[in-house]
Amino acid sequence: MDNFEYQNSTRIVFGKGEVSKVGKVVRPFGSNILLVTGKESLKKSGLYQRVRDWLEEEGITVADLDGVQSNPRISRVHDGIRIIKDQGIQVVLAFGGGSVMDTAKAVAAGAAMEQGDVWDFFTRKRTVEKALPVITVPTLAASGSEMNGFMVITDEESKHKLSTGSPHLYPRVSILDPTTTYTVPADYTAYGGVDAVCHLLEPYFNGPDPNTPLQDRMAEGLIRTIMDATEACIKAPEDYESRATMMWASSLALCGLTKAGIGDHHFPVHLIEHAVSVLFSVAHGAGLAALLPGWMTWWAQDHPEKPAQLGERIWGISGKGLSGEAEASIDALRSWFDSIGCPKNLSDIGIRAEDHGRLAENAVFQAEIWGISGTYSVENIKAVLAYCQS
Amino acid sequence: MDNFEYQNSTRIVFGKGEVSKVGKVVRPFGSNILLVTGKESLKKSGLYQRVRDWLEEEGITVADLDGVQSNPRISRVHDGIRIIKDQGIQVVLAFGGGSVMDTAKAVAAGAAMEQGDVWDFFTRKRTVEKALPVITVPTLAASGSEMNGFMVITDEESKHKLSTGSPHLYPRVSILDPTTTYTVPADYTAYGGVDAVCHLLEPYFNGPDPNTPLQDRMAEGLIRTIMDATEACIKAPEDYESRATMMWASSLALCGLTKAGIGDHHFPVHLIEHAVSVLFSVAHGAGLAALLPGWMTWWAQDHPEKPAQLGERIWGISGKGLSGEAEASIDALRSWFDSIGCPKNLSDIGIRAEDHGRLAENAVFQAEIWGISGTYSVENIKAVLAYCQS
Repeated sequence: MDNFEYQNSTRIVFGKGEVSKVGKVVRPFGSNILLVTGKESLKKSGLYQRVRDWLEEEGITVADLDGVQSNPRISRVHDGIRIIKDQGIQVVLAFGGGSVMDTAKAVAAGAAMEQGDVWDFFTRKRTVEKALPVITVPTLAASGSEMNGFMVITDEESKHKLSTGSPHLYPRVSILDPTTTYTVPADYTAYGGVDAVCHLLEPYFNGPDPNTPLQDRMAEGLIRTIMDATEACIKAPEDYESRATMMWASSLALCGLTKAGIGDHHFPVHLIEHAVSVLFSVAHGAGLAALLPGWMTWWAQDHPEKPAQLGERIWGISGKGLSGEAEASIDALRSWFDSIGCPKNLSDIGIRAEDHGRLAENAVFQAEIWGISGTYSVENIKAVLAYCQS
Repeated sequence: MDNFEYQNSTRIVFGKGEVSKVGKVVRPFGSNILLVTGKESLKKSGLYQRVRDWLEEEGITVADLDGVQSNPRISRVHDGIRIIKDQGIQVVLAFGGGSVMDTAKAVAAGAAMEQGDVWDFFTRKRTVEKALPVITVPTLAASGSEMNGFMVITDEESKHKLSTGSPHLYPRVSILDPTTTYTVPADYTAYGGVDAVCHLLEPYFNGPDPNTPLQDRMAEGLIRTIMDATEACIKAPEDYESRATMMWASSLALCGLTKAGIGDHHFPVHLIEHAVSVLFSVAHGAGLAALLPGWMTWWAQDHPEKPAQLGERIWGISGKGLSGEAEASIDALRSWFDSIGCPKNLSDIGIRAEDHGRLAENAVFQAEIWGISGTYSVENIKAVLAYCQS
């Protein structure tokens, strides 16, 4: 096990009906808040108005930053920062999916900057030194943003979708009410499951330390649980137990626990997917499903041990030799993606071989910032993409 | 899954050599500290003096509370409170095992009381409202006290060993350096493994909500890992990887994660063991090993599902029907205790059937405080003890 530091101070308020506590949870942090939301669905369902009512009951004044899109944009982050500065806002409340939460974090960090632009955090020109308190109420089980310090934002001008993180960006409190996810349609439920599984599998495969039996078993337990819960949620969207399992498991999948001690690792599938989703407007989880089996095939050529171990422990694959077991494990994962209605290669999302060049050129920008453009050079990313094509 | 709140804000500094950071870790919390330690072993090994040196390098003034025993006593807690008040101490640093850490927490809470006695926290006459900052450096992988808000203290007058907890008692920082556990002898290494497994199994079995697939899989992964690591540490006491796995797994075993969402649960085996260790001066882990299989047999009569599930997932037991599988699972656990040199029943630790009455009378005092003396009445505790006898 490698040396590590671990701390996750987010307070989780979890359960049926807990969303109604939003006013009481927010009030100790301030009475003048920015409410960040996404597109129309929350307003249509009436939940948006109920949240406004719960906040107003506690005497909280609300400014809106609504209409946040998938692949959330830096221009909307700038809008939020402007509102905060104009109105002396003290707290940022995110009510929505990963895009909404990440926008809220970027706004909270950007509004606390003394100089420079919030995009500097993503290009790593600056480091987040402080941020307004962020509180989240996720309405999708997927990104884990509700229990970590990461954020991913797109600059629509340069066409770069970049991630960064800071201990200052952990939400102070996250209210996880599984009933808010009842209306998530089957495709996005599946994409959420893929996202959470991918958060677990990327460090599982490419952490450099082979002596991580504890981290491996935690990840495998979460993966098995998320697979079962994803299927159950698709079959019965209002099954509370499955939605609850899905919500808590996807938070734990990227809360730092399964990565602590595995050594210096990366998220290469997320890296490449960010290029896919920014250039082709694909849903994040769909992009991951199209890429993960291909990346695994590329990776397993030299590193078959962990894919084989996954195969044995999740699907009972054995007796095929190390590379045969790794291959069977990748096939099993691809079949699972197919079974929950997800794409399983780039063809399935309309991307062709002639697109690989510009995808790789886009992705390598993030690889350079992460310091991994040796392993993930343009040429190597194209090699990965070739395995993902069909 | 039941509704829950979860927060664990302890910062973990984990790894080989990290103990040398103790001065730098403590300094931001104050320059005048109480150093709580146990018996002679740390002084003999020279580690105590090195810790003093690292603290002094940062200009920290140290007062000692040494000689803390197993089944730590309230009288020693009173001593520590007196030193803190006399010397205007700001921080409590625990350097030792669970007894040392729990003493440090009790001192930190007691010194911050405005009225009453620190024992009132244990009898639940008062609630911990604040405490001095506690920092821990565990030298034994067992109790998990380094990453939770619990403490267990014995009143040597009344012969009661009681536990309590508070969010204010989470260590601010814990330095987990596995090399500090190299000198733990085989018996205490095994007891540590049993303690950690018991922390996982008690909520696993008696959480009332049957819909906890995520919590179950996390607990099972940790149990499997702790079993392997315990055996490896006994075979090779200076095997860094096994000591590291053991140390991190035992912290996670009682950090709140595997219990969140399982509903109202208890620690009946710990409840009864506290009576055993206070009346018979047995090591805590040895007492747990003597009690757990018997309690499971008593419990499994009406609740065979989870013991059977454990048997299937840890030892591959199947095809025996629910109660047959539960029984085989308990046998397998008992055999494992035996294989690592632990007692497996009360006879093994010199307790006889005629002792059951006073053990039950002692244990029911804590059961009343916990509000579970319906299930754990004197009669029922005696029934459990009968299953544990041989």
